[in-house]
Amino acid sequence: MEKSTTQFTIQLKSKIKPTEDREKVIKAIKNIFTDAEITIPETDKIYITVEGEAKNIERFKELIRSQAILDTARSVLEKGSKGNYTKFKINKQAAYSEVVNFDKDIHGGIYVKIICSDEDKLINAIKDIAPRTKYGKIINEDEEEKKE
Amino acid sequence: MEKSTTQFTIQLKSKIKPTEDREKVIKAIKNIFTDAEITIPETDKIYITVEGEAKNIERFKELIRSQAILDTARSVLEKGSKGNYTKFKINKQAAYSEVVNFDKDIHGGIYVKIICSDEDKLINAIKDIAPRTKYGKIINEDEEEKKE
Repeated sequence: MEKSTTQFTIQLKSKIKPTEDREKVIKAIKNIFTDAEITIPETDKIYITVEGEAKNIERFKELIRSQAILDTARSVLEKGSKGNYTKFKINKQAAYSEVVNFDKDIHGGIYVKIICSDEDKLINAIKDIAPRTKYGKIINEDEEEKKE
Repeated sequence: MEKSTTQFTIQLKSKIKPTEDREKVIKAIKNIFTDAEITIPETDKIYITVEGEAKNIERFKELIRSQAILDTARSVLEKGSKGNYTKFKINKQAAYSEVVNFDKDIHGGIYVKIICSDEDKLINAIKDIAPRTKYGKIINEDEEEKKE
């Protein structure tokens, strides 16, 4: 099986408000998407948007497991999915503290878009990133389906 | 008449979120309250609150005049008044750009509390800071009252 880190592209976006520190926002993003390459636009504007791309989802996977929020993550990833991509937001302040939080972020949040080559690959990616659980344990949902 | 800058104490408070830059938040406060002395707590916490005090209201007065928001300011100052003080919030991001904005600030805002020695002094201070206007021009409301 192909490693999950190479199956998709992760597009990242976050606004930086005037009183925010660019480096801190980038740190927040990289805390969750460790290989993110972020571009800061050259502009004199005081409200800017940074954009970036990542491939590595491992830290995100680790965190949603250690925080025991797989069910929430699964539901967020499914809710945001459309065709070959899924998109959702994570809380920027939480990310700064290496925590994945899908709660609404009044600070703007980090926009995440996971893009696969086609819909089937996305479904598999979601299963891999946030597998279903039963009694708090990860289950093999393809096996479960066969049984039914 | 005593100068308005010495009639009261202005207490200031603002939260600093993890991705914010302390110096930028202090700059935002000082843009409006030029003589503000801000204390940054010594703490390892990532969410901190800075507090400060100022005496000089002149820049605030200038801005609400140049922005032509005297009526809004008057209403905000009156709405927040209780006994010898009035309190209100201003938008931190706007303050960073030297703009006074009383709109709700999703970023936390700057908390302002203007404290006088007694209620009468507060009423006079409010009249001085944000005098009533008529057809867009400042009026002497004490004169107007006498006429009625």
